[in-house]
Formats: sequence, C-alpha cells, structure tokens
Amino acid sequence: MSKLPNISTSIFTVMSKMAAQYNAINLSQGFPNFPVDERLTDIVAKLAKEIVHQYTPMSGYPSLLLKIAALINTSYGRTVQPETELLVTAGATQAIFTTITALVKNSDEVIILDPSYDCYEAPVLLCNANPVRVALNDDYTPNWEIIEKACTSKTKMIIINNPHNPTGKILTESDFESLEILLEKYPDIILLSDEVYEYITFEEKHISAHTRKKLLNRCVMVSSFGKSFHVTGWKIGYLAAPEYLMKEIKKVHQFLVFSVNSICQIAISEYLDIVSIVEIGKLYQEKRDYFRQLLKDSSFKLMPCEGTYFQVVSYVAISNENDVDFCKRLIVEHGVAAIPISTFYADGKDLKLIRFCFAKDNATLEEAAKRLCAI
Amino acid sequence: MSKLPNISTSIFTVMSKMAAQYNAINLSQGFPNFPVDERLTDIVAKLAKEIVHQYTPMSGYPSLLLKIAALINTSYGRTVQPETELLVTAGATQAIFTTITALVKNSDEVIILDPSYDCYEAPVLLCNANPVRVALNDDYTPNWEIIEKACTSKTKMIIINNPHNPTGKILTESDFESLEILLEKYPDIILLSDEVYEYITFEEKHISAHTRKKLLNRCVMVSSFGKSFHVTGWKIGYLAAPEYLMKEIKKVHQFLVFSVNSICQIAISEYLDIVSIVEIGKLYQEKRDYFRQLLKDSSFKLMPCEGTYFQVVSYVAISNENDVDFCKRLIVEHGVAAIPISTFYADGKDLKLIRFCFAKDNATLEEAAKRLCAI
Ligand SMILES: CSCCC(=O)C(=O)O
Ligand SMILES: CSCCC(=O)C(=O)O
Repeated sequence: MSKLPNISTSIFTVMSKMAAQYNAINLSQGFPNFPVDERLTDIVAKLAKEIVHQYTPMSGYPSLLLKIAALINTSYGRTVQPETELLVTAGATQAIFTTITALVKNSDEVIILDPSYDCYEAPVLLCNANPVRVALNDDYTPNWEIIEKACTSKTKMIIINNPHNPTGKILTESDFESLEILLEKYPDIILLSDEVYEYITFEEKHISAHTRKKLLNRCVMVSSFGKSFHVTGWKIGYLAAPEYLMKEIKKVHQFLVFSVNSICQIAISEYLDIVSIVEIGKLYQEKRDYFRQLLKDSSFKLMPCEGTYFQVVSYVAISNENDVDFCKRLIVEHGVAAIPISTFYADGKDLKLIRFCFAKDNATLEEAAKRLCAI
Repeated sequence: MSKLPNISTSIFTVMSKMAAQYNAINLSQGFPNFPVDERLTDIVAKLAKEIVHQYTPMSGYPSLLLKIAALINTSYGRTVQPETELLVTAGATQAIFTTITALVKNSDEVIILDPSYDCYEAPVLLCNANPVRVALNDDYTPNWEIIEKACTSKTKMIIINNPHNPTGKILTESDFESLEILLEKYPDIILLSDEVYEYITFEEKHISAHTRKKLLNRCVMVSSFGKSFHVTGWKIGYLAAPEYLMKEIKKVHQFLVFSVNSICQIAISEYLDIVSIVEIGKLYQEKRDYFRQLLKDSSFKLMPCEGTYFQVVSYVAISNENDVDFCKRLIVEHGVAAIPISTFYADGKDLKLIRFCFAKDNATLEEAAKRLCAI
C-alpha cells in the first residue's frame, strides 16, 4: 500500500522524456537553454581549486546568508536576521517540502489554489494532513471570499505562488489587503509564499510577502537562485521565516539534508557581489515579447503573462482533444513539447490550455514558433 | 507545539561551531581537511564552462546512474538496473529521510540500534511512527536475539549502519546469517542499510547488503560520494532499492527535492572512469594507523576501529566528567574538538567515550595528538 497512491511521475519528467525521445524542441519543463553568465561560471571554475568541498554549516554558507539578507533588504526594504531567519535549501522544492513537513500536522488542512504547481500536495499528504483545493477565478485572480469560506479551525497553512506558475499571474495590492484581513481572523494560519519567480515580472511590479508588515510574523517566503540565475540544475534555493517557525523548519532540515552543495552556494555568494538582479526581469520581458510576437499570427490564443518564464496559450481554435493528448501530438507530429494545464488542477480540469517555457535562446524560440505557426 | 519537541541542534553543528569559536583543531564533525584529488577538481573546473547547469533527470544524471551500477557490479558482483533500482540523492541524509518518509507509516515501528548516528530518528517521528531502540552488545556487535525480541507485527524497518558510525564496527558473515534468519520470519520488514563508509574498511572485509541475495528483495542500500571522494560539501549520495520500493521512494523524492546538483553529479560520473575506489580504504587505513600510533602513549585508551574515519577513545583514566562536559573542556582547555558518544544513545548513556575524526592531514593529526598526549 502506497503512502501516495494517487501520485505518479511528475508531468515535467514525462514531457521532458518524451521531448527527448522524439527529438522535439522542449518548451515543457521550465529551464533556460542559453548559456549561464560567464562571470558566474568563471567563479565556479576558480572555486573548484579552492577549499570549498566540505560541509557548509547547516543553515547555509555564512557569507551567502549575509548576501541574501542584503538582497532582501535592497529589493524589499526588509531587514532579516541571517542567522535566525534564513535557510539555504537544495532548491525551492526542498524548502517547500521541509516547511510543510515541519509545520503541518496530522489532520490539519492546507489551502492550495487551483491550478497550482505540483509540489505542494505530496508533502501535505505525507503529513496525514488534508489539502483543500480552492479554485482561482477564471482570470486566475484569487477569490478571497471563497478562500475565506474554505478556512476552518483546522486550517494550518495557505500556500500562494506569486508570480504564479503556470498562469504568470501576480498578486495585487488589493489581493494582499484581502489576504491580510482574512488572516487577521485566523491568527494561527501560516502563509507559505512561493516566490521563485520573484525577479521575473514585467509591467506589473511584483509585491513580495517580504514587504507586508502584517504578514511577516507568520510567513515563510521561498525563493530560488536556479530561477533567478539560470542554473536550475544547481538546486540552490532559500527560505525566510520568523525565528519561531525557522526553529522548527531547521529541525527537519538538519535531518532531511543537513546542508546544501558547498561550491554552488559559495559561487552564488560571490556572484551576488557583481550581478544586478533587476536585469533578469528585463531579459525575460524581452523573451516574452519576442515569443508572443512570433506566435501572433498562429492559431494559438495567447493568454496574459505578467511574470514567470511561461506563456499559456489556448489551442481551442486548433483541436478539441484534451490537453494531454494535444501535448503528446504536438511532440510527435509537430516537434514541440509543452505542458498541459489540466495537470495543475486537482480534478484535471481541461480548458484547452497548454504552457510553453520561453526561457530559451532566440533561435530555439524562432524554430518552435515556426512549427507552431504551421499548425 | 513542535512536531519534534525533543530534537535540538545536532551535536555536529554544536561541536563544529564551538571548535571554530575557540580556534580548536576540529576532530568532531566528520569531514576531511586535506585537498580533494586534483583530477576531480580539474573536472569541475572544466565542467563549469560546459552545458551542465540545468536540471538533471529526477532519478539522477543518466551516465552517473550507469557508472554507479558498474561500481556496484565491480565491488560486489551485483547487477542493478540503473533506470529502476538507483536514485541519486542530495547526500546520504536525504536518501535516508526520503526512504523512511516513503515507506514508514503511522504507528509502524522502526528498529534503530543503540548507539546510532543521529539522522534516523527524526524522519521516523515525523511519520508518526515509533523508533524502537535496541542496544548493541558492549563490543558493539548486534545482539540478534534481542533484536528479534523487539520485532512485532508493527515492525516496518530495521536500520543498520555498516561500517558503523561512531564505533567503527563492521558486520560479519555470521551477523548477516542471523539477520537473514530473523527476516525470513518477518517477510514485511524492510532493511535500510546505511553503508556510507562502505569503502573505508581495514583488516576486515566489508560485507555489503548488496552481496546478500536473501536480502536484496527488501533492502534499501544507501551510500555517499561525499565520504568516498572527500567531498562532503557536495551532498551527492545514492540509494539502491528493488523497483517496488524505489517506486515509492521516487514519489517522495520528486516532490522533496526533484533532482540533485548537476555539476557535481556529472563531475563524479566522469571521475568514476579514472579513480580506483579501493585506494580510499588504504588511505584511511594509513591515517588510522598513524593516528593510533600518535596516541599510543597518551592517557586515552584506544578502542578498536574496523572501518569509518572515526576513532573512539576512552578518557576514563583522565576524568570522571560526563562526556559532553569533557568534550567542551577538551575544546576550551586543550584546543581539540571531539564528539561525545553519549549523544549517539537514545538515553544519553555515558561510557566516558569520545570520537575523533582522523580524516585529516598528518600535520593536523600530529598537532592534535601532541595536545592530547599532554593531558
Ligand atoms: C522541477 S521540474 C519543473 C520545473 C518548473 O518549475 C516548471 O516547469 O514548472
Ligand atoms: C552531517 S554532519 C555529520 C558528519 C558525520 O557523518 C559525522 O560526523 O558523523
């Protein structure tokens, strides 16, 4: 008997494998295909010959913790204590799993918005807790009234993902105000804010939970250097939490992984001295604009994209198939891999939408668009 | 209310911090202080400029999986299927946490031998399962009769650590025979075999669970490249398990961490082509012999050491203090950090024993020994 009977191989693995098998352009799983900044890879090459190969301290490489605190301060004006309020993790996924495992108990309820990225549900189930899926509005804004109706005395956590994967939606000032009013009524609910795409936003300014004074005493904020610095393979993320929550999170972290890859932590720490993080948003804004431009005359309908490196499109004008079948056929017949949006819904709701990752060099985007425009 | 009310900061963090604070020679936490093989760091430096920075597949970098299968075959004559029976993890700690989380359920019992390394208990508790601690004999051999008495219909797992941290003991042919007879009576018990020091054994030949045909269909074997290649900071380990268990373990792995540091996986994969893993045992045998030689005329009594890079000593001729206090005084007054063995016992049993890590260059061992001989 499985502890996770309804969980199968993640859609990202399925689609990346199938893309490789059919030699398709892989716009499914989210990762960049362009070279990493040479200044960062130079640091790694230099560090390889230095004394950087043994355990870093459990919470993270000390100077990286200081740099993260400085980054949060520069970006959001928040002062965090590196020693007690920050933790470096083996990617954002490990940050999220560890936070849920540390804080959510038997028969607690955790509110997860629908659609959602796929890594929130499993840790909740493994805690013998209950995921409560609440639908986003049709335009992917949260419906705070429905969310409030879903809150009970058992609700332990609300998970938000901002900017939102897969829809690219970002939360507004008014969203945060509603959330704050709601949470005032439920003093024990913890907010888990997955902000791995925090630096990849466009026209609208990203509002981080870091900037919400009313939330900070109960908010765990998760981020990812893999996303921000185009090194998804490094698996270096971090989380910020108030000390009383961090104490519990560290208890789990020290026996879940103990510490995180030393070389890459140190490399990021040095890189943070020379990189301007705002450039990342600009880079992806150009890519988004270019990809949308390329698809303008296709039969796909482009949905809005306020952040992340994902573009959702509707194929309703092309086919009536369900989105999983459509994605498979897209790989096999047209040589382009995408992610079916139904897999982000607990009930597999099929809206004839698929997601493309545009974190690719221009040649790749052009060739993919050529194939997509021919459909 | 904490989910882990009795768990505090691990002794390895406490002692390494205190060692740094007092500028003591750190023989506490287990990690080498000598340079990593240049051939390995050259590979990292070269790889930094290659296309190695994005997600590897969820189970591990494919060629690393092949090389691990080859290594297991060369070392133990076992054929494992890389695709279905191997998983690369963010260190052995993550392998152990993930295995326990995937396989152990609410109110199951897990047998943990006493003394034990400190990472087994927390994941069992987080599963709402019960750790059942069974004392090793005074010479640190397992007492299979007592272990069998501890088995019930609720026993889900027995955890062995071979070679054993902290005692350096390795299991014998007769141990395995007893274990096999016991497990035949309990067809549902899973064996978790933590063999992170598998290549660090001396006069006695290490018997891996890989070689036990009767155990393979229910055994999860955990190993660590950090230990074998002196790169504890890289956090690259792996586990081998039969497919029906691996399926469950991967379900958790994909939402716990998804994948593992790409550069270091690829570096190890290339290094495995050129390194001879048996050299590692010889290196540490020389270090052990040298360290024991240096301490021969001290007031510490040397316990046997068959494997691992740890030497346990008794200080009963020196002091009556409990071992934690003794270790603290050793740092403050004598400038050498060690680990108190009581912290490996569930009940904190104090036998006036402490553990030194001898994975250090000769100059460090000499200076530490000079200080220890002066006591
Ligand atoms: C961890 S694989 C998935 C990567 C990702 O964030 C996505 O494609 O949504
Ligand atoms: C993960 S820190 C502990 C390292 C180690 O294996 C030990 O010192 O026993």
